Amino acid sequence: MYSFNNDYSEGACPEILKALIENNFVQEDGYGLDNFCLEATEIIKEKTNHHNIDVHFVPGGTPCNILAVVSCLKSYEAVIAVETAHINVHETGAIEASGHKILTCKGNNGKITPKEIEEIFLNRMEEHMVYPKMVFISNATELGTIYSYDELKAIREICDKYDLYLYMDGARLSSALVSIENDLSLANITELTDMFYLGGTKNGALLGEAFIIKNPELKENFRYHLKQRGQMLAKSRIIGIEFKVLLNNDLHLELAKHANKMAQTLKMIFAEADIPFLVDTSTNQIFPILPNKMINELKKEYKFEIWEKYDDENSVARFVCSWDTKKDKILQFYNDFKRIRLELMEL
Amino acid sequence: MYSFNNDYSEGACPEILKALIENNFVQEDGYGLDNFCLEATEIIKEKTNHHNIDVHFVPGGTPCNILAVVSCLKSYEAVIAVETAHINVHETGAIEASGHKILTCKGNNGKITPKEIEEIFLNRMEEHMVYPKMVFISNATELGTIYSYDELKAIREICDKYDLYLYMDGARLSSALVSIENDLSLANITELTDMFYLGGTKNGALLGEAFIIKNPELKENFRYHLKQRGQMLAKSRIIGIEFKVLLNNDLHLELAKHANKMAQTLKMIFAEADIPFLVDTSTNQIFPILPNKMINELKKEYKFEIWEKYDDENSVARFVCSWDTKKDKILQFYNDFKRIRLELMEL
Amino acid sequence: MYSFNNDYSEGACPEILKALIENNFVQEDGYGLDNFCLEATEIIKEKTNHHNIDVHFVPGGTPCNILAVVSCLKSYEAVIAVETAHINVHETGAIEASGHKILTCKGNNGKITPKEIEEIFLNRMEEHMVYPKMVFISNATELGTIYSYDELKAIREICDKYDLYLYMDGARLSSALVSIENDLSLANITELTDMFYLGGTKNGALLGEAFIIKNPELKENFRYHLKQRGQMLAKSRIIGIEFKVLLNNDLHLELAKHANKMAQTLKMIFAEADIPFLVDTSTNQIFPILPNKMINELKKEYKFEIWEKYDDENSVARFVCSWDTKKDKILQFYNDFKRIRLELMEL
Amino acid sequence: MYSFNNDYSEGACPEILKALIENNFVQEDGYGLDNFCLEATEIIKEKTNHHNIDVHFVPGGTPCNILAVVSCLKSYEAVIAVETAHINVHETGAIEASGHKILTCKGNNGKITPKEIEEIFLNRMEEHMVYPKMVFISNATELGTIYSYDELKAIREICDKYDLYLYMDGARLSSALVSIENDLSLANITELTDMFYLGGTKNGALLGEAFIIKNPELKENFRYHLKQRGQMLAKSRIIGIEFKVLLNNDLHLELAKHANKMAQTLKMIFAEADIPFLVDTSTNQIFPILPNKMINELKKEYKFEIWEKYDDENSVARFVCSWDTKKDKILQFYNDFKRIRLELMEL
Repeated sequence: MYSFNNDYSEGACPEILKALIENNFVQEDGYGLDNFCLEATEIIKEKTNHHNIDVHFVPGGTPCNILAVVSCLKSYEAVIAVETAHINVHETGAIEASGHKILTCKGNNGKITPKEIEEIFLNRMEEHMVYPKMVFISNATELGTIYSYDELKAIREICDKYDLYLYMDGARLSSALVSIENDLSLANITELTDMFYLGGTKNGALLGEAFIIKNPELKENFRYHLKQRGQMLAKSRIIGIEFKVLLNNDLHLELAKHANKMAQTLKMIFAEADIPFLVDTSTNQIFPILPNKMINELKKEYKFEIWEKYDDENSVARFVCSWDTKKDKILQFYNDFKRIRLELMEL
Repeated sequence: MYSFNNDYSEGACPEILKALIENNFVQEDGYGLDNFCLEATEIIKEKTNHHNIDVHFVPGGTPCNILAVVSCLKSYEAVIAVETAHINVHETGAIEASGHKILTCKGNNGKITPKEIEEIFLNRMEEHMVYPKMVFISNATELGTIYSYDELKAIREICDKYDLYLYMDGARLSSALVSIENDLSLANITELTDMFYLGGTKNGALLGEAFIIKNPELKENFRYHLKQRGQMLAKSRIIGIEFKVLLNNDLHLELAKHANKMAQTLKMIFAEADIPFLVDTSTNQIFPILPNKMINELKKEYKFEIWEKYDDENSVARFVCSWDTKKDKILQFYNDFKRIRLELMEL
Repeated sequence: MYSFNNDYSEGACPEILKALIENNFVQEDGYGLDNFCLEATEIIKEKTNHHNIDVHFVPGGTPCNILAVVSCLKSYEAVIAVETAHINVHETGAIEASGHKILTCKGNNGKITPKEIEEIFLNRMEEHMVYPKMVFISNATELGTIYSYDELKAIREICDKYDLYLYMDGARLSSALVSIENDLSLANITELTDMFYLGGTKNGALLGEAFIIKNPELKENFRYHLKQRGQMLAKSRIIGIEFKVLLNNDLHLELAKHANKMAQTLKMIFAEADIPFLVDTSTNQIFPILPNKMINELKKEYKFEIWEKYDDENSVARFVCSWDTKKDKILQFYNDFKRIRLELMEL
Repeated sequence: MYSFNNDYSEGACPEILKALIENNFVQEDGYGLDNFCLEATEIIKEKTNHHNIDVHFVPGGTPCNILAVVSCLKSYEAVIAVETAHINVHETGAIEASGHKILTCKGNNGKITPKEIEEIFLNRMEEHMVYPKMVFISNATELGTIYSYDELKAIREICDKYDLYLYMDGARLSSALVSIENDLSLANITELTDMFYLGGTKNGALLGEAFIIKNPELKENFRYHLKQRGQMLAKSRIIGIEFKVLLNNDLHLELAKHANKMAQTLKMIFAEADIPFLVDTSTNQIFPILPNKMINELKKEYKFEIWEKYDDENSVARFVCSWDTKKDKILQFYNDFKRIRLELMEL
């Protein structure tokens, strides 16, 4: 049984484990004040080409999203996001539990449009409705798609027009950055957003994300939020060490490239067999629409998620590849897929 | 300038003011423990034909909805409601501020269907998504429509199937009960819901709603919620006195009948001129789709709300009548409307 | 049975009821936008001698305290208050339910001292502890004592030193203002606090308090908080009318004078009999320390609260007088008290 | 510079790192459903001698405390704890941010007494005050003291008497269990509490605590809370692996024994010099009361916390030893301490 279920099925990339061992007995302060976190921060400043940013290391992605919301918004302010946004569907109401409403729009292949943002903003009605104040986007999105420079720029412009914060969930940002379609740099993203995070958990770290705040008015006392929400790790050094390793020689991009490449190979396997996709992606997630019979057969050998029902005989499946997805497993899948396809055709 | 803006533009019905004066100097305990509240409770038990209910008197409608949610739901549990629900649009995120997500569906003319409830419930995904636990309906709805006995029964059945609470926002319940289409009684509603409220504010009271809890497991310590949310009025006697008056000889139904009748007369005025409606209603709210030019002219003499844009040249307007809407004002409106219509046709 | 239980046992002062009736059929906008609220606001600007204040009318005292906290504080910021503060003891955790910690100190006869504020502020420890940001005081306090000009000035100075907001709960502010010990004016209080409220409920209104915001940075979007917390009354006109009446010819001060005078008469009755007091007060609350046997006898004829146990044989009682406390009931109490005292002495 | 600042200054015990490496490439489900977590759960069931418990692996201590509160309490229910409790002082109001009040008592050397619990419980006043429902204790406490079997039993009994939940914060539970004064077993603690956690972070893990729920009514849907509060680690495998290692051959007890032994040696060094202590402890924390001059000298070579001011010339210091505190550093401290003491005496 091999898993294409997600990109956090394995442990950490070996370079990280090596660094954890090498630095294990150094005494350090905790709670984000250790030298590893400070050094990783400096590297991030270089890589983003922004030297006035604040960087915080946070254990996971849902925590980053909670922290973004509670640090940006007053109690009556709301988040704008697409319906498929992780915060709207798969975080068990964490945003609402922090007191804030999410105003949703359809989106386009997982991406929000400036027009949708504008419509939601203009639809507010003084104090009887929440005040939309922050736009939430993911890149890569929950559907594996990515934003282009022009798209992000246009979103920034609508945010500036209505004085909205722009926050990017970057759980799979490295994967987006190395997509063949991508024309955004880390510097662009820092420039165009108010805050974002660069994900580690889904790209070879044991845990942890780098949370980056550019907007000066959002920096103050962020550490209070970290602590109050139970997200200030005592041994923060772990995440500091991890990000030093991931950023060194752009290792995180190499890991993401591998994940994308494996997923794109899977995509070709399906495409060759004329399998349609829910959405066309160039990152490490693909969403083939498969006959349920084929899914049943594939499930005997592989783990993968059923994303949603497509029609009575077909379902959308999600296959995810990681920094550690094995090439030979893709090959094996190719053979299994061909065999199963043949068997089903013969029926 | 005459207002059809809402049903709370005037003070209280004279019978209420009279009773307030008559009982003004009697010393009473506060916080809902006064004899007027106790007596009003007994009358409500009679009227609902349910003697094991708990009744609490609450200053307003949004407070009732907040209290329903916080008393029913655990922090990870969510409310199911139509998109147009008051709690979803016009309460400034009060439900989310209390920590809970609202899961929405399209609805049908402001009403939820059992199928929609079922779909939302079946779409949950263990601990990664909120758990839908309560269905919120309004009767009359925010669009002025009402639930029939069969519709409410079917909703109750789907709630029973999935162990969901059913709560009815009755801000305009009296108006629904005296609609010519109505086949529900207060007893039916008590039977078929877990909790609901009978609105006073929009039907002739100065303020206040009667909040009724039938489900025994939801009764416990409700008064703690009342106090914690700042909804326990010191001089609760006011609302107690009001409801005694409103329930005496079914005065609340008489008031609502008048409001409905006035609104239905307005409806005929528009219908006669072939004005279409967003939705057909039999209560005290109507939603004609009017040319913007006509709206501009009418606005010179009358207050009413623009509900939403219809197309580039027409908008949906909302006209609301109250227990105190004057017959002669309706007549005056009829004449003004005819005149404006003629003028516009001549252009 | 006559009640000295509190100052909200009766209805409203007759002038208020009269005004409600006179203005009953005027159509007005709701939610605080009616002309009565606007007119009352103008009067308050005159009376406070501050023309740049914002005034909001709120149904009750606990709501005012909730609104003060949520409009002033970020999620990691805390309130400083004495242990006996209403928000700390008798609001069912409403402040904590809104997400904020209360940092308490002993206080001195119900009043906080600048030294205590300073100690709490200096005791903070960066992001591992909450950040104290607002000082809560009541005037009159929960123990019936009042702040002098010098005391309030000194508190303001310590607040300025550490950039803290100062908020005054004025549920019984009129009673404080007419105390024989008082040297504060409404103008002083407006000058020295960031926000405060002038109470109506405990001084002759049916319900309602006037919430006054002087600090410009706290004014923005306060109405969103009002609505979100379920405190925006549809028929806000009621409270507007009430405050117009209460402020006209300083009626509220006349009502409070009567309440104080009645309480001070009760105080003399006890003092004459050498009954000690928990604290010396000059407002409408007194706290005699009575033998339990005497309490049992008095309870047969009078309602009053037991504040706390004093020792095995004595308890602290609380007697409260109101705008409507009857002189002849005080006289009757005097006679009953004398009789009971004699009977107990003869045992 | 050597740090006695806390017990999380170093990385993880080498056995843990070794196991992380050995199991790094095994594919596993995430979010606590991996086989390592399941196996660690089984071991904990053995060690606690309770086979009906639920075990969840949580990233840190503050998160455990938040989760305990939100899973146990309704919104109007409160926690009882000593003033020095971590939740009351050093978690940035995390408990209040989740909506709940903490009712505090003085405690005795960091420990709560049944009498204090009873007094707080009996002091409640229906719906005007919060309802005390959960007792929070730490073992070892924040002052390094521990509960005896009899003390814990007595607390359980008072909890049973008033139907209160008993929750133990076990951040330093292993240290308590191997204290020479201890007479409690893991089985006792499981028996006598409703929920508790066994800490990893402060005893040799990179991160993570094992959260144990015995009370069946508190088990349901705990995973929803985990997710909603951002505490469900994607690669939960890490904590599962760690606890397998820590529990194997009771390694966690060996690590704690070392930490205690080092701290007790430090204690003897101070005691020999007649330095008094804030409180007498037998675990890995000691609280000597040192002259400020001595503190200044020691600070040149050693990191340690100033706990609180003692008087104008002395302060309470906190020295903490860990699983990795080096014997030779203790020896070196001994020499430095002697030298500084001599120098100060000669002045």
